[in-house]
Amino acid sequence: MEMNRRGFLHSAALAGTGSMIGLKKYAERSTRISKNGKLNVAILGSGFRGQSHIDLCLRRNDCDVVAIADIDEEMISRSQSLFQKHNSKMPKIYSDSPHAYLELLQKEDIDLTIIASPWRWHSDMAIASMEAGVYTGMEVCGGFSLDECWQLVNCSERTGSHLYFMENVCFRRDILAVLNMVRKSMFGELIHLEGGYQHDLRGVKFNDGKTAYNSGVEFGEMGFSEAKWRTKHSVYRNGDLYPTHGVGPIAQMIDINRGNRFMYLTSISSKSRGLHNYILDHPEGGNSHKNASIKFKLGDKVTTCIKTSNDESVILHHDTNLPRPYSLGFRVQGEKGLWMDVNQSLHIEGKSPSHRWEEASSYLKKYDHPLWVKYEQNAIGAGHGGMDYFLMHSLVEHCKNNEEPPFDVYDAATWLAITPLSEESISLGSHPVSFPDFTRGRWTERKNDFALNDRY
Amino acid sequence: MEMNRRGFLHSAALAGTGSMIGLKKYAERSTRISKNGKLNVAILGSGFRGQSHIDLCLRRNDCDVVAIADIDEEMISRSQSLFQKHNSKMPKIYSDSPHAYLELLQKEDIDLTIIASPWRWHSDMAIASMEAGVYTGMEVCGGFSLDECWQLVNCSERTGSHLYFMENVCFRRDILAVLNMVRKSMFGELIHLEGGYQHDLRGVKFNDGKTAYNSGVEFGEMGFSEAKWRTKHSVYRNGDLYPTHGVGPIAQMIDINRGNRFMYLTSISSKSRGLHNYILDHPEGGNSHKNASIKFKLGDKVTTCIKTSNDESVILHHDTNLPRPYSLGFRVQGEKGLWMDVNQSLHIEGKSPSHRWEEASSYLKKYDHPLWVKYEQNAIGAGHGGMDYFLMHSLVEHCKNNEEPPFDVYDAATWLAITPLSEESISLGSHPVSFPDFTRGRWTERKNDFALNDRY
Repeated sequence: MEMNRRGFLHSAALAGTGSMIGLKKYAERSTRISKNGKLNVAILGSGFRGQSHIDLCLRRNDCDVVAIADIDEEMISRSQSLFQKHNSKMPKIYSDSPHAYLELLQKEDIDLTIIASPWRWHSDMAIASMEAGVYTGMEVCGGFSLDECWQLVNCSERTGSHLYFMENVCFRRDILAVLNMVRKSMFGELIHLEGGYQHDLRGVKFNDGKTAYNSGVEFGEMGFSEAKWRTKHSVYRNGDLYPTHGVGPIAQMIDINRGNRFMYLTSISSKSRGLHNYILDHPEGGNSHKNASIKFKLGDKVTTCIKTSNDESVILHHDTNLPRPYSLGFRVQGEKGLWMDVNQSLHIEGKSPSHRWEEASSYLKKYDHPLWVKYEQNAIGAGHGGMDYFLMHSLVEHCKNNEEPPFDVYDAATWLAITPLSEESISLGSHPVSFPDFTRGRWTERKNDFALNDRY
Repeated sequence: MEMNRRGFLHSAALAGTGSMIGLKKYAERSTRISKNGKLNVAILGSGFRGQSHIDLCLRRNDCDVVAIADIDEEMISRSQSLFQKHNSKMPKIYSDSPHAYLELLQKEDIDLTIIASPWRWHSDMAIASMEAGVYTGMEVCGGFSLDECWQLVNCSERTGSHLYFMENVCFRRDILAVLNMVRKSMFGELIHLEGGYQHDLRGVKFNDGKTAYNSGVEFGEMGFSEAKWRTKHSVYRNGDLYPTHGVGPIAQMIDINRGNRFMYLTSISSKSRGLHNYILDHPEGGNSHKNASIKFKLGDKVTTCIKTSNDESVILHHDTNLPRPYSLGFRVQGEKGLWMDVNQSLHIEGKSPSHRWEEASSYLKKYDHPLWVKYEQNAIGAGHGGMDYFLMHSLVEHCKNNEEPPFDVYDAATWLAITPLSEESISLGSHPVSFPDFTRGRWTERKNDFALNDRY
């Protein structure tokens, strides 16, 4: 009785605007799998992150990376060498302009796009890809405006194309084990959660324009890789610029957009010192370096507090400008106990000694998620401790079946919205600001189907 | 040239209202030390906390505990046994009514009062004590209203009597070592700080009315010790009910009310489950117990974010209703690194391995505060890991010299204010609320003189 959602929405889309390219091509296919039994994948943005995705695709036997859009010659060249390494057929390159991805989407027969470009291009590319009827994987970032978030939602609803928001930390081994424990009610009903992005990015935000990390104090046009585009966000913006690694895993645990939703947030920012100091203290920098006069707007520590409709409190940490160890700062706390990643410990009432921490390791092993049990060997060598394998596997398998992604356009919009909302709150002296309900009320009916088993 | 502040203010007070008792008596003395070379100490509130203070006083050779005001026969009896243990002269007992402390202040020749009563009495007793011209030590708690905070300030300014706010965690060994490191600029300029009170108090908030801990699910008139009075705050109030153990040490590190001040806060609260569950699950409780129908207003996790005038961000955690290990959750983060207590680790740029934690222990030992170096032996056996010794020592020595306390009436008012402000913010959906400037602008001139050396 249930009409195929994709087909239905597709028809609705055809009845609407005629500006969508590629819909005819899409309509000719019955499934996402192209004729040779493999997905045709396009990479939009082939920097280091895109190259990691290319490598994971080429390791699989169900993906052909047939086209790349990028304008950076060195990154294209590095990408091409991956195809040589894997003895794979060279992809078609679209590099004439930053808008060459539009030509790619028009000319190529693509089943899956993976967007790993600078943040400024994510939504433009995702919208074009969805308009072209292509299953769309979009790398994570923070949003620029609520309007941008709505555009993604509106486009996905209008075209019926799926947006898979590529949040890899949802697949981190300890995170999946803790999700497993959450679902077995080992922490009871959840009460309070924390996470975030606490990563000393100073050596990423600045370099010498030739090598990526720790090599200098240049950025923007003079920078290389992420320093070319990422750093300027720290010059102009003060907010949680990169919320998804923290909020994504938390959202799975408390069913955000699936029986629960984010209601409002407040953000607070500290002073900004770290990036300026880095320029002053670096051997390539100093007081007289031109970048020493730049004022960075991004506070070194931004803290965001979110209230959910189910009355949990969520704290997100953003801390990327200061010397510190990497830590996403997770805390998952419920009626019966809590886990924290910074001390790799937990406490569970009735199991742990009263008022005492226990090392989490034995629990994380015991409750290892079925996905990790099944695919551990496949994940060896994949990025970020293996979790990138699981992300790619999930993306590809969902695409092959044209299934709704576990982190879909509503999640993308919600998580992306944290950035402009936190900017607004900070600019208003931590005034609370409300989340839009991007699901238009359907969060009360939607179900969480992320990682329910070992399928993908 | 500098006029004796006490004398000046005293004269000013005499010129004002005539309602102050004891001023004449005070004026006759030139210092705080009474004729036999010892301080005459009065204990207002002799529950378990008051008894701990009595014990510490009686261990000293410069304090006579001459009077106690309390209405609880058992606690008075327990207190009296401490005097037997120490072969000390029995104190005069004032127990006729909850207001008997007023009679005590009028009749006795007191140099120092120590207030360790239920929170509801703290400010009333402190005001009466200051009005009586007595150096006043007041145990920590959260405030009820901003008006209460102002009353303390106004009273101290009017009478010239000092209020010492007895925050013991400022003397914790690791905290003092980290303060030492902060002052040596090892973390650089401070950016972000966290602390709080995360302590599973369920077994304190409920008991069987006879023994203090974990013995039942009674409270209020049916409860014993803290359960008698503390628990009802969790029934009626939602806010950071106990902010000082976190904020006190932080305030020392960033010179609050001494060149810096708190500007505003926001608070967020989670749902409330822990206390209700405790009643249901306890062998003495259950669904049919009368307390099972009580709705507790206090959220299980309350998080408060404070902005300072020097642009640091401060996070306070309050978490007292859930099963968890004790942790005040300190984080002291600056330009050059950070320390956290939950993982007992730190990172200092140039010293620690890049992007890695180091165990804090060797640093804490190396930078052990001169106070601990000097008085470690004296502190053995004192409460809360020895820090209560340092608190009492500081209180007594400051009183003997009639010196301004390191945590004075302005600090008391500021820290106490966090509770009503957090209640207000929560009730307004995390709306930011402003701190009054209790110093009336003098925070720009005041100097931090807490623990500058090994004196006290």
